[in-house]
Amino acid sequence: MENHKLAAAIAYRLLNQTKHSSKKIIHQRLLIPNFSQLNPLSSTSGFTRHASVPLKRFLASYRWDLQKSSLIRMQNISAIHHRKFGSVASAVVQRNPNFSTINNDDLIYFEKILGAKKVIQDHEELETANTDWMHKYKGSSKLMLQPENTTELSQILEYCNSRRLAVVPQGGNTGLVGGSVPVFDEVIISTRRMNNIISFDQVSGVLVCEAGCILENLISFLDKKGFIMPLDLGAKGSCQIGGNISTNAGGLRLVRYGSLHGTVLGLEAVLANGSVIDMLGTLRKDNTGYDLKHLFIGSEGSLGIITKVSILTPPKLSSVNIAFLACQDYISCQKLLFQAKRRLGEILSAFEFLDSQAMNLVLHHLDGVRNPLPSSIYNFYVLIETTGSNESNDKATLEAFLLHAMESGLVSDGALAQDFSQASSFWHIREGIPEALMKAGAVYKYDLSLPVEKMYDLVEEIRTRLGSAANVVGYGHLGDGNLHLNVSAPQYDDAILSQIEPFVYEWTSRHRGSISAEHGLGLMKAEKIYYSKSSETVQLMASIKKLLDPNGILNPYKVIPSSLSSSSIEAYDKVSLLIFSNVQDVHMKSQPTICKLPWSTF
Amino acid sequence: MENHKLAAAIAYRLLNQTKHSSKKIIHQRLLIPNFSQLNPLSSTSGFTRHASVPLKRFLASYRWDLQKSSLIRMQNISAIHHRKFGSVASAVVQRNPNFSTINNDDLIYFEKILGAKKVIQDHEELETANTDWMHKYKGSSKLMLQPENTTELSQILEYCNSRRLAVVPQGGNTGLVGGSVPVFDEVIISTRRMNNIISFDQVSGVLVCEAGCILENLISFLDKKGFIMPLDLGAKGSCQIGGNISTNAGGLRLVRYGSLHGTVLGLEAVLANGSVIDMLGTLRKDNTGYDLKHLFIGSEGSLGIITKVSILTPPKLSSVNIAFLACQDYISCQKLLFQAKRRLGEILSAFEFLDSQAMNLVLHHLDGVRNPLPSSIYNFYVLIETTGSNESNDKATLEAFLLHAMESGLVSDGALAQDFSQASSFWHIREGIPEALMKAGAVYKYDLSLPVEKMYDLVEEIRTRLGSAANVVGYGHLGDGNLHLNVSAPQYDDAILSQIEPFVYEWTSRHRGSISAEHGLGLMKAEKIYYSKSSETVQLMASIKKLLDPNGILNPYKVIPSSLSSSSIEAYDKVSLLIFSNVQDVHMKSQPTICKLPWSTF
Repeated sequence: MENHKLAAAIAYRLLNQTKHSSKKIIHQRLLIPNFSQLNPLSSTSGFTRHASVPLKRFLASYRWDLQKSSLIRMQNISAIHHRKFGSVASAVVQRNPNFSTINNDDLIYFEKILGAKKVIQDHEELETANTDWMHKYKGSSKLMLQPENTTELSQILEYCNSRRLAVVPQGGNTGLVGGSVPVFDEVIISTRRMNNIISFDQVSGVLVCEAGCILENLISFLDKKGFIMPLDLGAKGSCQIGGNISTNAGGLRLVRYGSLHGTVLGLEAVLANGSVIDMLGTLRKDNTGYDLKHLFIGSEGSLGIITKVSILTPPKLSSVNIAFLACQDYISCQKLLFQAKRRLGEILSAFEFLDSQAMNLVLHHLDGVRNPLPSSIYNFYVLIETTGSNESNDKATLEAFLLHAMESGLVSDGALAQDFSQASSFWHIREGIPEALMKAGAVYKYDLSLPVEKMYDLVEEIRTRLGSAANVVGYGHLGDGNLHLNVSAPQYDDAILSQIEPFVYEWTSRHRGSISAEHGLGLMKAEKIYYSKSSETVQLMASIKKLLDPNGILNPYKVIPSSLSSSSIEAYDKVSLLIFSNVQDVHMKSQPTICKLPWSTF
Repeated sequence: MENHKLAAAIAYRLLNQTKHSSKKIIHQRLLIPNFSQLNPLSSTSGFTRHASVPLKRFLASYRWDLQKSSLIRMQNISAIHHRKFGSVASAVVQRNPNFSTINNDDLIYFEKILGAKKVIQDHEELETANTDWMHKYKGSSKLMLQPENTTELSQILEYCNSRRLAVVPQGGNTGLVGGSVPVFDEVIISTRRMNNIISFDQVSGVLVCEAGCILENLISFLDKKGFIMPLDLGAKGSCQIGGNISTNAGGLRLVRYGSLHGTVLGLEAVLANGSVIDMLGTLRKDNTGYDLKHLFIGSEGSLGIITKVSILTPPKLSSVNIAFLACQDYISCQKLLFQAKRRLGEILSAFEFLDSQAMNLVLHHLDGVRNPLPSSIYNFYVLIETTGSNESNDKATLEAFLLHAMESGLVSDGALAQDFSQASSFWHIREGIPEALMKAGAVYKYDLSLPVEKMYDLVEEIRTRLGSAANVVGYGHLGDGNLHLNVSAPQYDDAILSQIEPFVYEWTSRHRGSISAEHGLGLMKAEKIYYSKSSETVQLMASIKKLLDPNGILNPYKVIPSSLSSSSIEAYDKVSLLIFSNVQDVHMKSQPTICKLPWSTF
């Protein structure tokens, strides 16, 4: 396929910038802490680029190199969440009376184990650690411990377990579902001091490090070695790898490198009773018994605290290409994805989509955004990115694919980024949608995994239900089957909400979707788990929780519904009976309570 | 990099065949049931291509299209295992007296649930089902049940659990570690009748099917859709996807597509008590609670029986290239792997190595094998395969890589397959090593995962220990960190064995390797688990086993060491106490007993 043929078929619209290497494109894109890219990261997320900075100071000192507008957007979210959600946690959860409260003997013990500087009682530091990034959840812990190694952490947990002191593990505290802050007075156990890189094998690409390593530091370390982390998040400047793994963070590279269940080779974790479970293998193949590390990936610190990590890192590839395409209908988007998987195969690294409502919002509300395909209004837009090791080959492959897609009618128009600025501007449209939504008024946001073929049906059904009352917007990671459904309205209105919920959760459940694609459940959605998981499965989760943490001290009130968790712990005096109990009854008792405003931040 | 430059640098040695498409190369290679490729498959393995054929009949009727010699090799292994291992199981394990034996009421109940034709008491059928593929393990079950769906299976298990009837789940019965046959009189539960494909989504590539689907049938089904299974095994003609997942089969595509923990999206499994656990999601992203399906991947049917499977299948790519290279030292092999990962990146699909001892054996003992690089003796040989979507681009990329490797001195000589026959002959060298070893005399075989940089140290240390008493051979899946260490001697000799064991296990353990890279533990290695897993981890496995299967009826005597499993079940009346018991004590009690002949079949 020659270039001149392609140029005739696809509109190349050169924008007004100097050329940069395509290598830089992605680098800069990933440094931009903006919203749509923050979906994947939301499970561990938040948009800070400095670790360990108290929130207020962080907001003041935030290094914001690229787009000031995003900072404003960020502050708005905090404010809105404050307004609407300031005390949501204490409103729905009661403190488990089985838990002790900290006393002087406890403090003396912890200082003996850790030394005074790692036993934090300073009000300002605790204020930050008690508060989540959005100011949506706030605990009242009086104590943060900062163990420096596994032994110290093990001693702390063993003691807390014997004393029935509840704890909340905290990494970068960048989560968005209230998973990383106390609900009441739980002891905060921060992993920030456990931040050493232990080893890196340049041949196998296996990195072993402590859980408190900040993701961006690992990315920088690997960059010098010619490798990348298999996950990347906007929150990388603050989030820690232990937190990433505890929350099974998705991130920007999932469509290419898969989930952490595939790339994490080993873990070390400490159980509630202080037992150190060494699963820190560095092997790609190991069939000796049950692969228990998977229990700790995505269990949000409720089964154990991850202390060390072994992860397979891919080599860094140099060639990146980005295309922005228009499709007339959703079926064409699906077919294009099908074709992209076949024809781009091993170099496909992103496949994002947005509908015309999303495009209109971005064009309307964001300064300096131009439609790369202005000649007509299209119903859907698709952003495709390839990443490979051979620039000319990769570009030729993408061009041939695009020409074929044009000729077969799947794509109505398209533009291929010729330089860094074009690529950046294409990504900015996709990434700017959440900001545009915020500016448009009130917004009801849902982060859903759905079968690709059904995904847009939900958007259309919600649109039909709401009629002219609201603007229903669909976009997301089509390549991952991850829809971001957003309902935009002039103001918050219970009538609108009642049209959306529980319909949206029931619809998702009916189509075997997930109500939390990239986020954890945390405190926010612990009671909603039954929409995505069967009662028997949740029962089994609760049994495993009880097995590993019989006193329920690890991150209480989260992940597992309250009816099955520590607050009703006295109901289960023998774990092995749990899975035979009356599942239906439990299911009915703990049916999700519907939050008035189902905010999430993407 | 032009072809003529490459041709000058690398010896292209054209062999004597007509040209075929490179697509066929891999197809035919994968159909060849030969040994080295059977390492990956060994975890579920065996080399049959017909499902459900009694073993003797299978040996007589085996369709052997390509290489008759392999059949002879196969029969030899069975004979040797018979000779050395005929009764190993009953010799080391005692029947758990807590288990009931089948009575007439049981048979009446099963016939009522299943109908007579799915309740098998026929002697010949039971003889086959009681015997593993190698004739190494043989049980004495009087009953095989063949449920047709999850409901039937659930009813069977609920009944067996209430009656304390032990069961062994059986898929294709192609395993090599005694995991899929009864040890004593366990009821065999065959999944062969649960063999429906439920759905396939051409856009997402997600296949949903029942556990009894034969792998080759799934491969054929997907082939017509333009997709492949992310795993492929020599045993594909018999092995079932449920068994593959239960044993976490590695297979030929692991280096490219990763393990089943990454590609399996969902499972349905039935617990010992008959509870159906529906984890059959088809989503790439789902962060709603603990991801419990991973407990069932690789637990060899000891936690539950997998009934349905959802798996992400990659698109089929058309371009395959294969190079056979020589390196002077192991460090060059490592560096070459490092370079291959960087420069071939997304198209690398195999990276295998063998030492000169392995090459000499093949040249000596196999008919018709020629060294593609005959001009000199080299210490190491490497086989590299690429698979991609653009034939000319991929070939150019591989050629450029090879030229660079030659220029930088990592590669001393090399040949690039020009057609199907050359590719096949290159693979035949690598795949012929086990056959050559069998012909050379007695052989002590070990399947180990080790850190790549340490891997060959073990071969050299064993070589030093044994001196002239034996020929020590190293080869394997360097790209996966999987070493096949083989010690070849004129005859079996306790003096040689005592030089190898327990040294080889201790060395592997010291370097955090795995004593079972691609195989399960099954019955064969249940007691050896501590060489690769910490006591605390094994304790936790046993606790989870006890939680999910309190009566220990599921695949008893396997995976978990006897000191922690059903035979000593009365010691643990409360599961949650298990993880707090004296770990060191358990560790000492159940230190691996060393088998006299550590045979595995690769």
